[in-house]
Amino acid sequence: MSLDFAQQRRVEDLYTDYARVLDDGPLEQWPELFTEDCLYLVIPRDNYDKGLPMAVMRCESRGMLEDRVRAVQETIMHEPRYLRHQITNISATQNEDGLIDAIANYSVFEVLDGELPRVFSVGRYLDRICTTADGTLRFQEKRVIYDSVLVPNTIVYPL
Amino acid sequence: MSLDFAQQRRVEDLYTDYARVLDDGPLEQWPELFTEDCLYLVIPRDNYDKGLPMAVMRCESRGMLEDRVRAVQETIMHEPRYLRHQITNISATQNEDGLIDAIANYSVFEVLDGELPRVFSVGRYLDRICTTADGTLRFQEKRVIYDSVLVPNTIVYPL
Amino acid sequence: MSLDFAQQRRVEDLYTDYARVLDDGPLEQWPELFTEDCLYLVIPRDNYDKGLPMAVMRCESRGMLEDRVRAVQETIMHEPRYLRHQITNISATQNEDGLIDAIANYSVFEVLDGELPRVFSVGRYLDRICTTADGTLRFQEKRVIYDSVLVPNTIVYPL
Repeated sequence: MSLDFAQQRRVEDLYTDYARVLDDGPLEQWPELFTEDCLYLVIPRDNYDKGLPMAVMRCESRGMLEDRVRAVQETIMHEPRYLRHQITNISATQNEDGLIDAIANYSVFEVLDGELPRVFSVGRYLDRICTTADGTLRFQEKRVIYDSVLVPNTIVYPL
Repeated sequence: MSLDFAQQRRVEDLYTDYARVLDDGPLEQWPELFTEDCLYLVIPRDNYDKGLPMAVMRCESRGMLEDRVRAVQETIMHEPRYLRHQITNISATQNEDGLIDAIANYSVFEVLDGELPRVFSVGRYLDRICTTADGTLRFQEKRVIYDSVLVPNTIVYPL
Repeated sequence: MSLDFAQQRRVEDLYTDYARVLDDGPLEQWPELFTEDCLYLVIPRDNYDKGLPMAVMRCESRGMLEDRVRAVQETIMHEPRYLRHQITNISATQNEDGLIDAIANYSVFEVLDGELPRVFSVGRYLDRICTTADGTLRFQEKRVIYDSVLVPNTIVYPL
């Protein structure tokens, strides 16, 4: 079932918020865009297409996303870098359970200290979105299917 | 004449479908987004700006698009690759014939086996869209004007 | 305060016009998208985040934007090049003064003569938009915050 204009706009705003907190912070707000019992997976396209379950990043609750944020900020050694997302060509429909199934294309550019920007990752999001009691939208499931066959050696920040 | 909200959304959905079938398949559905008597042209920007008619790809019916799909799948020798489109900044207006004239910016990223993603092509679409009897939108004419002066040596997949 | 559908569409159309005149011209129309007393700044992200005022390009009126256009066309020595913008993930709200505050992500690709396209700049726009007497939208302030720490050696065209 296709969404009405107001719902469609809310879905687009959710993706805009998603890009914003990852690119410009505060990163602590990233988990707030998910439900408590969410599923977040980053999967190479080849694996996904073959039905292989292996994900390079797997979080099974909002708490695990919060752990991930702390790891990025405190634990993982990494060069400083900036990311910039472009999330486009979103299609969203309501399924029979009242949840929203959404697909979008994304590109992420990375800027390392003293370097020019480069393409870091491209792919698509396969997402399930639910409407909370107060009417806001949250990701119930997010699958990041990235096109490169190579596993980038350092996925530090979430995609 | 500017489009109403519902028509504008349908135009955006058409571009989203266009990106989807090229990036994630099935590629056989790509010709279905065009009318039977469509025109599909891929033209270097320099030629287009000078009014030169030469196109690096030219299809004058949906049947020719279907031939192109078969060629990609069966005939042309090419390395496996993934494409990812981002189609943005769409402007669409209705002309006096009831057709929709649409312009959009696009980027296409390419991922070759074992490599990181790179920018493959950027440019714009200059399109004419018609509404079929059952209310769906189809490309009547599509001109892909790509910015690079270089002809990429292998345009395998449609842009 | 969030915008109604019609205002939201006008904001998106303004960004589409912005991309169009920079990418496909005529460049002379670029200043027309700003108010007479506009402010246009291009600022490296590091400076912006630290509250440093230094901008690599600063124009404090539409007249200065027109000077910039003339400089690009007549004075500055530069290789011929094409640009292509993608402006996405726009969020816009109305503030208490009746102005629209808008944030958007952008990428700009550059194609030099005889070369393949490459990522030139990525970042975000932090903009203030006003509605003129005849109902059209114009940029009152535009801050281009680009992510690279490096100052690209040749910002010829506006971003």
